[in-house]
Amino acid sequence: MATTRAAPTSVVALRFDGAALWAIDQTELPWRERELELKTAEDVAEAIRRLQIRGAPLIGVAGAYGVVLELANDPSPDTLERACALLRSARPTAVNLARAVDRVGDAVRHRDPSSTDPQATALDEARRIHAEEEAASDAIASHGADLLAGARRILTHCNTGALAAPGRGTALAVVAEMAQRGTLESVIATESRPLLQGARLTAYELSRLNIPHELIVDSAAAGLIAGGAVDAVIVGCDRVAANGDVANKVGTYALALAAHAAGIPFVVAGPTSTIDPNTPGGAHIAIEERDPDEVGSLAGRRITPQQTRCRNPAFDVTPAKLVTALVTERGVVRSPDAAALAAHQAIPAR
Amino acid sequence: MATTRAAPTSVVALRFDGAALWAIDQTELPWRERELELKTAEDVAEAIRRLQIRGAPLIGVAGAYGVVLELANDPSPDTLERACALLRSARPTAVNLARAVDRVGDAVRHRDPSSTDPQATALDEARRIHAEEEAASDAIASHGADLLAGARRILTHCNTGALAAPGRGTALAVVAEMAQRGTLESVIATESRPLLQGARLTAYELSRLNIPHELIVDSAAAGLIAGGAVDAVIVGCDRVAANGDVANKVGTYALALAAHAAGIPFVVAGPTSTIDPNTPGGAHIAIEERDPDEVGSLAGRRITPQQTRCRNPAFDVTPAKLVTALVTERGVVRSPDAAALAAHQAIPAR
Repeated sequence: MATTRAAPTSVVALRFDGAALWAIDQTELPWRERELELKTAEDVAEAIRRLQIRGAPLIGVAGAYGVVLELANDPSPDTLERACALLRSARPTAVNLARAVDRVGDAVRHRDPSSTDPQATALDEARRIHAEEEAASDAIASHGADLLAGARRILTHCNTGALAAPGRGTALAVVAEMAQRGTLESVIATESRPLLQGARLTAYELSRLNIPHELIVDSAAAGLIAGGAVDAVIVGCDRVAANGDVANKVGTYALALAAHAAGIPFVVAGPTSTIDPNTPGGAHIAIEERDPDEVGSLAGRRITPQQTRCRNPAFDVTPAKLVTALVTERGVVRSPDAAALAAHQAIPAR
Repeated sequence: MATTRAAPTSVVALRFDGAALWAIDQTELPWRERELELKTAEDVAEAIRRLQIRGAPLIGVAGAYGVVLELANDPSPDTLERACALLRSARPTAVNLARAVDRVGDAVRHRDPSSTDPQATALDEARRIHAEEEAASDAIASHGADLLAGARRILTHCNTGALAAPGRGTALAVVAEMAQRGTLESVIATESRPLLQGARLTAYELSRLNIPHELIVDSAAAGLIAGGAVDAVIVGCDRVAANGDVANKVGTYALALAAHAAGIPFVVAGPTSTIDPNTPGGAHIAIEERDPDEVGSLAGRRITPQQTRCRNPAFDVTPAKLVTALVTERGVVRSPDAAALAAHQAIPAR
C-alpha cells in the first residue's frame, strides 16, 4: 500500500527522542504550536488528564512511553507497578490506554531477566505499539475510503486525525484518504463542545491538508443531515463493546440517530485496540464526567450564572444497531454485533 | 385562573412607556441587566436582528410597538408601509413577527379615519397583541403542566421563558408552573450554541425562580435522555407549519429523535400565533442562516483557523411525527397533523 504510506500527515502529535516524550500541547491549538517535554509517568498522566494529549489511540501510545520514562528513572518492579497504575487511571473511558500500559507492563514482568533489562524491554514494546497504531491508521484510511467510495460530502465529529492517533488518525484518516483519491467534495466538522476539538483541532488539520470544510455547532448537524447536505457520517471511537455498542465523544449518539433517520451510512473507525471484548455492552462502559467548569466557562469567562451547576459527560454510547459499519485496520465489519466482532478479531492483523 | 396569574415572572423583558419601548438587552445577560431605549422602527428592527430582543412571541410584540413608535414620529401612510416592511424582514423564521406587524398595519389601514388617528389605532392593536400573548403564556403554562403532571425531570432547549415571550414564556412557563405546583424535581438546560441562550438566559431565569437545574452542552442531551435522566422534553417553537412540522432553535430536531428513541414525551409549547396555516410543511419554512462569525468566534476570540469557513443555520425542522403534543393557549393537540391543527385553530381563544 505504497500510495497510502506516502500520504501527507497534517502534524506529528507525539515523538520519543530516547530521553523525553515530546507532545504537541493540543489545548493551545490552533493558536500556538508548542511541544511539551514529558520526562516522567506523572508528566504523561497529567498531560492526558488535561487533554494536552488526547484521542484514544494516541493516549495509549503516550501511556506506553510514560512507563518507559519512569523505568529510565528507576527500573524497579515497584516503580513499574506504580507507573502502570498511575497511567492506567489517567482517563477511564478509552480502553486503549489501559491496554497499552498493560502490554508494556506485561512485557517487562515476563521478560527474560538474564538477557534484557526493564528499560529496553519497555521501550521495545512501546515502539511496537506505536508502529502498530501507525500501520493501523494507514489500513483504516484505505478500508474506510474503499467503503465510502460513493460518498462525496462527509460529516465528522470531534477530532480523529493525526492529533488523535499515531499516523494519520482514524475517521479523519479516512477523510484524508478520500481527498487524496479525489473522491471527496467537502467535510462538515462539528465544533465539539465543550473543549472544541472540532473547531480547534479538526479544522486545523483539514486546513493543513487543504481539504474544503465547514465548521458548525454540534446541534446543527442533525438538521443538515435531514436536509440532505451529507452523504455519510464517520466518527472515531473510544471503546467498542463486545456487542458493537460504541462509546465516543459526547454528541456521537445524536449523529447516529440523525444518520439513521436520513438513511445515510453511520460509520465508526478505530483500531482493533479500541475493541474491548471484556465489556459486554454499552451500559458497562464507564462514562467519564469531567470538570463542570469546562461547560460553565469559556475562554476564562463564566457563561452562566454562578449558582448554575453544570454537568459534563465527556462521552455517550451509540447502540450497535445504529452503526452501519465499523472500520478497523483489519477491514470492515458491517452491522457489527457480538458474533461479527468476535469473528473480526480472529482475523490476523495485516 | 387566579393562581396562575399570581405566578412570579423572572424578569420583564419588554415595556412600553408611551414614548419609547424599553427592552432588556439579552446579549448582555447574565453579566449585566441593562434596558435599551428604542424610539424608532429601525431601533426595534436592529435590536431584533442583533438578538437583543429574541423569542418568537416577544419579537412579535416588539415589532408591533416598532410600528407604533414610527407612526408617533410620522403618521403618514408611507411611513406605515416602510416601517411594516422594515420590521417584517428583521428576521425571517418566526411567523409571529410578520403577523404582529401585519395586524398593526391592517388596523391602521382599515381604521375609520373620521374617529381615530393612526398612532392611537396602532397603539391599541399593539397593546391588544401584548395582552393576548401574556394571557396565552399563562394558559400555556397551565395546559402544559396538566399534560406533564407525571413528569419530574424536564429537559429544555434554548430560552423560552419570560425573555422569549410576554408573561412567563412558553415551554419555560410550563416548567415554572410545574415548579409552582410542586411536581417538578429538576431541569436540564442545554447551553444552546452558538449564542448560548440556554447558558445565559434560561439558567438566569431558572436561578431567579429558584428552580433546581443543571446546564449541559447541547450534544450531551441525547445521551442523558437515552440513559434515563429525563422524563420529558419540552421546547418552544418559532413556526409550526400547517402539517405540524415545527421550526425551532437549531438542535431541537436531535432532541426529538432522542426522545422518540427513548420513548419519552417530546412536547412543543407556543401560542397559536406561531402556527402558520399558510406554510404547508417544514420544507417550506425559511431557515435563517446567521453570521458565520457567531460560530467561529467566542467571547471575541477566534476559535478556529482563519481559513475555516463556518455555517450557522439558526433553526431546524422537527417533523410532526416526532411531536408527542403541541401545547397552545387553547389546549393540547396530541400527535399534531394537518387535521388536528385545523380543528385546534377553530377552537375559540379562552
